[in-house]
Amino acid sequence: MKVFVIIGHQNPGSFNHAVTSCVLNTLKELGRDTFYHDLYAEKFDPIVPHAEIADENLLPPLVKQHIQELKQSDGIVIVHPNWWGTPPAILKGWADRVLRSGFAYRFGPNGREQFFNDKTVQVFSTSNTPRDVEIQVYGDPLEVFWKTIVFGLCGCRSFERRNFEPIIVSSHEERTTWLDEVREIIQRRFR
Amino acid sequence: MKVFVIIGHQNPGSFNHAVTSCVLNTLKELGRDTFYHDLYAEKFDPIVPHAEIADENLLPPLVKQHIQELKQSDGIVIVHPNWWGTPPAILKGWADRVLRSGFAYRFGPNGREQFFNDKTVQVFSTSNTPRDVEIQVYGDPLEVFWKTIVFGLCGCRSFERRNFEPIIVSSHEERTTWLDEVREIIQRRFR
Repeated sequence: MKVFVIIGHQNPGSFNHAVTSCVLNTLKELGRDTFYHDLYAEKFDPIVPHAEIADENLLPPLVKQHIQELKQSDGIVIVHPNWWGTPPAILKGWADRVLRSGFAYRFGPNGREQFFNDKTVQVFSTSNTPRDVEIQVYGDPLEVFWKTIVFGLCGCRSFERRNFEPIIVSSHEERTTWLDEVREIIQRRFR
Repeated sequence: MKVFVIIGHQNPGSFNHAVTSCVLNTLKELGRDTFYHDLYAEKFDPIVPHAEIADENLLPPLVKQHIQELKQSDGIVIVHPNWWGTPPAILKGWADRVLRSGFAYRFGPNGREQFFNDKTVQVFSTSNTPRDVEIQVYGDPLEVFWKTIVFGLCGCRSFERRNFEPIIVSSHEERTTWLDEVREIIQRRFR
């Protein structure tokens, strides 16, 4: 089993990066091969040029690499903060550019085709809004985005997400407990 | 009254650009001053660097310009396609970068402050998903994003959005009718 791990967070010293390190270490302990992308570190360009939509030959090497690695991956782990109920632009644009029609899904003469049916997806997100407000006032928009819209269209049947909050006032002890939970989730889902 | 008009679409020949031209022409007929930004044309960088979050002095001139123009604007018009139930990354990052804490809203010792109370906001979006599916299956995520989350937090009391769909199979006649509607909406909301 190969797992594609991606983080969209601007600060290498962040809790998001601690989560990602925990994910990578746990996958290594499990003997899993990984592809790893820190979108900020690799300066991923999230902007879709017009011509690229119709012609995959125009994709830059880095986007092609993401696509090739995802084709080889049975699992996907995504780590990011909640900004306006959505991922930061760099990760939103990763979905725009990489999960393109013809690769992740396709609408054709036979209706909708989905190409991620057998991939296991795990999202870890962080936020400051209380969980009940996020769900009741906003309708848990990150769950809708990743589970229903993005990976729903791509056909993923095995999706989970864990949100940690409120991150801004969390103590060292809370974060340590959360990282223990990250480890348990990865062990359970990618063993 | 000054109106800030912004478009996030990759193709200058698109219906989104026709909508934007109609918006600008109608505002001109009404005698309104406008600020106009085609995010693709001006190569807006949607990625928030870490250091910028805590120090507004680090904002690049273009982001500062957007903020200064928004301060002078009574109205905001946003035009974009629906990509994954959210705006394209270039526009998502405009929200991340421009509508920052301390400018559009602030959480302080006195609770939440909102600085866009008196701004009138109009969003025009385009999509291919049938409207009833968009609402029933996905919960109308663009409405949640712009109205409830983004401009809700900024305190806007006057928000409307019109989605045109399905754009991919729309005829010239339908698009002409839709542009007439754009004109009527702008006349009604910014007269």
